[in-house]
Amino acid sequence: MVSPRLADYFAAEAIDGPRVAVDLELVEARYNTLAAAFRGADIFYAIKANPAPEILDRVAALGGCFDCASIGEIELVLSRGVSPNRISFGNTIKKERVIRQAFEYGVRLFAFDSMAELEKLERSAPGASLFCRILAENDSADWPLSRKFGCSVAMAGDLLIEADRRGMDAYGVSFHVGSQQKNPRAWAQALGDVGRLMARLDAAGVGLRMINLGGGMPATYDNSTPTDLLEYGAVVIAAVREQFGTRPLDLIIEPGRGLVGDAGVIQAEVVLVSKKDDSAAPRWVYLDIGKFNGLAETMDEAIRYKIVTLRDGAPEPVVLAGPTCDSVDVMYEKNPYPMPSDLQPGDKVWILGTGAYTTTYSAVAFNGLPPLESVCI
Amino acid sequence: MVSPRLADYFAAEAIDGPRVAVDLELVEARYNTLAAAFRGADIFYAIKANPAPEILDRVAALGGCFDCASIGEIELVLSRGVSPNRISFGNTIKKERVIRQAFEYGVRLFAFDSMAELEKLERSAPGASLFCRILAENDSADWPLSRKFGCSVAMAGDLLIEADRRGMDAYGVSFHVGSQQKNPRAWAQALGDVGRLMARLDAAGVGLRMINLGGGMPATYDNSTPTDLLEYGAVVIAAVREQFGTRPLDLIIEPGRGLVGDAGVIQAEVVLVSKKDDSAAPRWVYLDIGKFNGLAETMDEAIRYKIVTLRDGAPEPVVLAGPTCDSVDVMYEKNPYPMPSDLQPGDKVWILGTGAYTTTYSAVAFNGLPPLESVCI
Repeated sequence: MVSPRLADYFAAEAIDGPRVAVDLELVEARYNTLAAAFRGADIFYAIKANPAPEILDRVAALGGCFDCASIGEIELVLSRGVSPNRISFGNTIKKERVIRQAFEYGVRLFAFDSMAELEKLERSAPGASLFCRILAENDSADWPLSRKFGCSVAMAGDLLIEADRRGMDAYGVSFHVGSQQKNPRAWAQALGDVGRLMARLDAAGVGLRMINLGGGMPATYDNSTPTDLLEYGAVVIAAVREQFGTRPLDLIIEPGRGLVGDAGVIQAEVVLVSKKDDSAAPRWVYLDIGKFNGLAETMDEAIRYKIVTLRDGAPEPVVLAGPTCDSVDVMYEKNPYPMPSDLQPGDKVWILGTGAYTTTYSAVAFNGLPPLESVCI
Repeated sequence: MVSPRLADYFAAEAIDGPRVAVDLELVEARYNTLAAAFRGADIFYAIKANPAPEILDRVAALGGCFDCASIGEIELVLSRGVSPNRISFGNTIKKERVIRQAFEYGVRLFAFDSMAELEKLERSAPGASLFCRILAENDSADWPLSRKFGCSVAMAGDLLIEADRRGMDAYGVSFHVGSQQKNPRAWAQALGDVGRLMARLDAAGVGLRMINLGGGMPATYDNSTPTDLLEYGAVVIAAVREQFGTRPLDLIIEPGRGLVGDAGVIQAEVVLVSKKDDSAAPRWVYLDIGKFNGLAETMDEAIRYKIVTLRDGAPEPVVLAGPTCDSVDVMYEKNPYPMPSDLQPGDKVWILGTGAYTTTYSAVAFNGLPPLESVCI
C-alpha cells in the first residue's frame, strides 16, 4: 500500500521527525486518470491541498491549470512560470486590493457569490470572467462544505444578470459537492439546479458558457471504499450531457485531495504506549504527529487514515493521540484505532493517503514543534 | 477594553493583514497579580500559550520559571539566558532521545504518567526529579483536557514508589483542572486525591515534596464572567492548607492563558459581508483571520472572543467566518455573533483576549495565507 518508490525512499533516509513524502509518479498517474475520467474537462488543481513546487511543476507540465485561494497561492503558481490565463481565483472572499493585484498579474477568472464581491470585482477587475458559486447539498461527503460558500440559485441568477449589465463577462456557475464525496450522483442533483439557472439566464439574454464542477473526488482512506475515478467521471459527465445535451460548454474540475491525497505517505514514530489505570480500557498510543503538525483533518475524526507498521501482533483498539500538551490533540478516541498489540515506543508507522491537507495545515510552532517536513520524490 | 498602549500602537501602525499585539505591561501586571494571589507558589509560565521572546524575557526578569512542552521550547527558553533549573519539562509524552537532550542541557524536572515513560527517564535522565500527573475532573472548563494526560491515583502511587526504587527523585504530583477553568473549587476536589496519594506514599516511605497545581486560571472572554484572580488564588491556597496543614510543600502553578491571554489584541479586517439568499437568515461576515491563521480555539465555538469595531449600528447576529476556502473555517455559527448592522468590507475589528494560543497555533501557509503576525509592545 506504500508505493515501491516511497518504500525505497523511507528505507534509505534517516529521518528524525515526522515527514511526508509525495510520489510524483503517482500524482502524474492520478492526473492522467482524472483527465481520462472527466474527458473534455479542464483540470484546475486546487493547490491548497498541497502547494509543493514540485507538484505544481508536474501539473503544469501535464497541461493542468490552477485553482488558487489567495494572492499568495497565485504568486506561487506564477513563480513556477505558469501563465496567468491558467489560473482561477476560486475564493469567493477576497479583499479588493487583492483582487486588483491578481488582475494586474493578468488573472481574468474569478469566483463570487455576493453583490458586495461583484462591486469589488467591477471596480478592480473590470471585464473579467466571473463564475457564481451556488449552494449545493453535500450530505454524503466526509468533509462537508456547509453554507460558507455559495448563494441560492435565485440569487445567483440575479447576480449573474447584474454582472452582465455591469460589463463583466458572466461566464459560468460553480458548485462544490463536498470534499471526499462518496457518491458520484451528488453532482447530478446540483446539475439540475444549474440547468434551471441557465434556462432563466438564456431567457434574459445572458448565455452562460462554463460549469465548474468543483472538487470532491475522493482519496483512499480507511473509512472509504476504494474509488474508481473512471466511474465518477462517467457518472458526472453523463449527468452533464443529460442536462445540457450538445450545448457547447467549458467544463472545469478542481481536484485537490483527489489528485494528490493518495500520492503521499507520512512516516511517523511511536513516542509512548501507556495505560491510564489497570482497567481493560484501551491503551493510549502517542505518535510524534498529531492534529497540529500534519493531521488536522482528523478533527472530529472526519478523515480516518490507513496506518501500517512492521509489527505483526494482533490488532487491539487503541486511542491514538498526538505529541502536544493540548488534549484536543487526539486523532481517534470515539472510534479507537486497531494497532498491533506489540507496538513499542520508537517504532515507525506509515500513515497513508496523506498527500493532501497535511503540510500547509501544520501549525507554525505549536508546543515548540516544527511544522511537518515535506519532500517530493 | 483595548489598553491605551495597544490602542496607540494600532492607531500609529499601517497594518495590511491580521496582527496580534501583546502589551508587556499587562503581562507584568498579571504576573504580579498571580504571584500575589497564589502566594508561596512558583510560577512556571506555560510557554506554549505564547513563546514570544519578549514575553519570556519579561517573565524571566520577574523571577518566573518555565513549563516547556518540547525540546524546541526548552532550547528557546535557554536561548534567553534562563538557567535550566528554572525549566520544567511538563509533557508526559517524550521521545527518549529528547529526554536525554534536555538532561544534557541541565533540565532536572520532568513530568510522567506511565511505566514506559519512567523507564525512559531512568535510562536517560538518571536521578532527576519527577512528578506524576494524575487525572482530574474538569467538567467546568471551557477547554477541557480529557483523559490524554495523567493516570489514575492508584497507578500514580505505584509509579512514584517504583520511581523511588529506581533511584529517581519522587518529587511530587501534578494535575490540571482544564484550561479556562471557571470554578476555583475544581482544584479542591483534585487536592483531595493528592492528599490520599501522599498519605499512601508517606506510609511507603516516599515523602512527596511538591504539588504542581497546573494551569486553568482563566482569561477574559465574551462568555466568561470577569475573573478575580485573587479569589482564585485564595480558594486554591486555602484548599492546599486545609488538606496539608503546615507540611512543607513546594507549590507550582503553570499559567499560560491566565498570564498572557488578556494582554493581547488582534487587529483584523472585514473582507466581505453577504447574504446567501433573500431570507431573514443571518448575514455572513468574513474576516481576514479565522481558525487557520490565529483563531484555532474557536474550534467547536469553545472560546468566544470579545470583538469591537468603530461602527455604532445596532448589533445584529451574524455568522462569523474566516478567509480560507475551507468550510470548517467558521468561528461562530451555532451561536451567531452580534455585529453592527452597518459593518462594511474594509472595516477594522479588534479581537480581545487573544494573547494566548493564537500565534503558534497558526497554520504555516494554509490556503497560501501567512501565519499570524505578532508583536510585543
